[in-house]
Amino acid sequence: MHLSYINVLELLGTFAFAISGATAAINKSYDVIGLLTLSFVTAIGGGTIRDLLIGATPVAWMQDELSNTAIIVAAIIAALFFSYVKRLHQWLTVFDAIGLAMFTVTGINKGIAAGLPMPICVALGAITGTFGGLLRDVISGEQPILFTREIYAAASIAGGTIYVAGTYYNADADFIQSIAVAVIVAIRLVSLRYNWQLPRLRG
Amino acid sequence: MHLSYINVLELLGTFAFAISGATAAINKSYDVIGLLTLSFVTAIGGGTIRDLLIGATPVAWMQDELSNTAIIVAAIIAALFFSYVKRLHQWLTVFDAIGLAMFTVTGINKGIAAGLPMPICVALGAITGTFGGLLRDVISGEQPILFTREIYAAASIAGGTIYVAGTYYNADADFIQSIAVAVIVAIRLVSLRYNWQLPRLRG
Amino acid sequence: MHLSYINVLELLGTFAFAISGATAAINKSYDVIGLLTLSFVTAIGGGTIRDLLIGATPVAWMQDELSNTAIIVAAIIAALFFSYVKRLHQWLTVFDAIGLAMFTVTGINKGIAAGLPMPICVALGAITGTFGGLLRDVISGEQPILFTREIYAAASIAGGTIYVAGTYYNADADFIQSIAVAVIVAIRLVSLRYNWQLPRLRG
Repeated sequence: MHLSYINVLELLGTFAFAISGATAAINKSYDVIGLLTLSFVTAIGGGTIRDLLIGATPVAWMQDELSNTAIIVAAIIAALFFSYVKRLHQWLTVFDAIGLAMFTVTGINKGIAAGLPMPICVALGAITGTFGGLLRDVISGEQPILFTREIYAAASIAGGTIYVAGTYYNADADFIQSIAVAVIVAIRLVSLRYNWQLPRLRG
Repeated sequence: MHLSYINVLELLGTFAFAISGATAAINKSYDVIGLLTLSFVTAIGGGTIRDLLIGATPVAWMQDELSNTAIIVAAIIAALFFSYVKRLHQWLTVFDAIGLAMFTVTGINKGIAAGLPMPICVALGAITGTFGGLLRDVISGEQPILFTREIYAAASIAGGTIYVAGTYYNADADFIQSIAVAVIVAIRLVSLRYNWQLPRLRG
Repeated sequence: MHLSYINVLELLGTFAFAISGATAAINKSYDVIGLLTLSFVTAIGGGTIRDLLIGATPVAWMQDELSNTAIIVAAIIAALFFSYVKRLHQWLTVFDAIGLAMFTVTGINKGIAAGLPMPICVALGAITGTFGGLLRDVISGEQPILFTREIYAAASIAGGTIYVAGTYYNADADFIQSIAVAVIVAIRLVSLRYNWQLPRLRG
């Protein structure tokens, strides 16, 4: 099996998403079933919702042995070395941003292939990148981080818009994809560094 | 583009559903991502679950530019003019009842087209009309209004049963649809006016 | 209509799952809409998620009159005779274990028929057997029992692994299915009897 650098980036993202699900399970003192379920849901939830919405079944993760292995490894590592994993927080944040970017691009590609309108493709990219975390929070009974903290979906939408627009104007696929990924990762990490947030709504 | 009066009624309903999602987001002090997500989920959640259950993909909202525009406009209006929107409560209640009725009929029509049994068609109508609000409550961490307050799903089921029965006995489609819509809107608004509720269960 | 003993076992399981959903609705003082929704979601939620994931639509429960009748009967019995139903707890626990086992086998059979990898088939069996209860808890705002208490999904995975492995090695279908069902029911009931739990994770 040959792994392209794209596969490697996606695997890093999947790994980071799974760690985030495993961390939620550990913080809730769930058992190993909760650990595995939340790790999988966080890592593959966004892509699963995307596949269901466009009718791409069986959904992708059921036939993606590499991702599933990465998720199980992430869950085990998180459970066994939790205090160590917490110290890797900075790295995981970078991997998570990479995952957000790669998942966004994958979602958009599937939307384009399905012939969906451009804004819907951007939305599908954001759903792919962010709804796994939303499901993690809803299932574990937490208020969705997606709605209240940090620049996350907004980074996906910004980069996704660039990618969709570039594709529409026939930009070189590799080039525009790299730009989009870089924009998403940069917005995400810079916003974390300077603690940027979207304004909260007031009633 | 020619808009029939049915399209207009559906749009009013979609608008009211989206306002209800936006209101939930504003009450929770979510950010603009939460605002848009809850507005969309409330307005198109029921139809999306319906489409997934019967396998009608890509789900309808992904190709319904008019509804999506109405939802985004509703979210923006709710966010910018929240105190004003609250004063329009009476109108929104009427629009919401119209939405419940139109969504019920749309769901039943899709069930009939899919050749499903009659009681399932009624259920599919109720799912279309009410599960967007259920998703709104579950995602935002609230107890489902659908299960505890007011005559809502019951109105959908009453009108839906009339519609399905009329269709079965070959009643004129426009006629029976108008009756069903009128019944749902009437039950909903009268029950609100007189504060009717279904009895709560006791352990 | 001829009912095989397999149908009877599945119906007992469906009935017990629906009672568990109805009990949750009654404990929350929901109304009759909450009662019916939670009864159905608990009984058919796992199979519905399974069908959606593999693209088997319209999902099974929409065309399964017998199960739907059993669910409605269970909901009515639970609502009218709640104190009596609570005293039948021991029987319901046995029926619930049977349901877990039968649903696991059904889910695996669908996974095999869809040509999915063996570990995914085991997961699909566990999803079929357990995600109805997960949905019940998430919708009603409770922490998922699935993640914190008792040997439940683990029993499904143990029996499911035996069933998938036996099928792979061409064991007699009836024989290996009976073994798997017996293992799941036995693990579930013995673990309840001796109050076994999976270890909880610690941060």
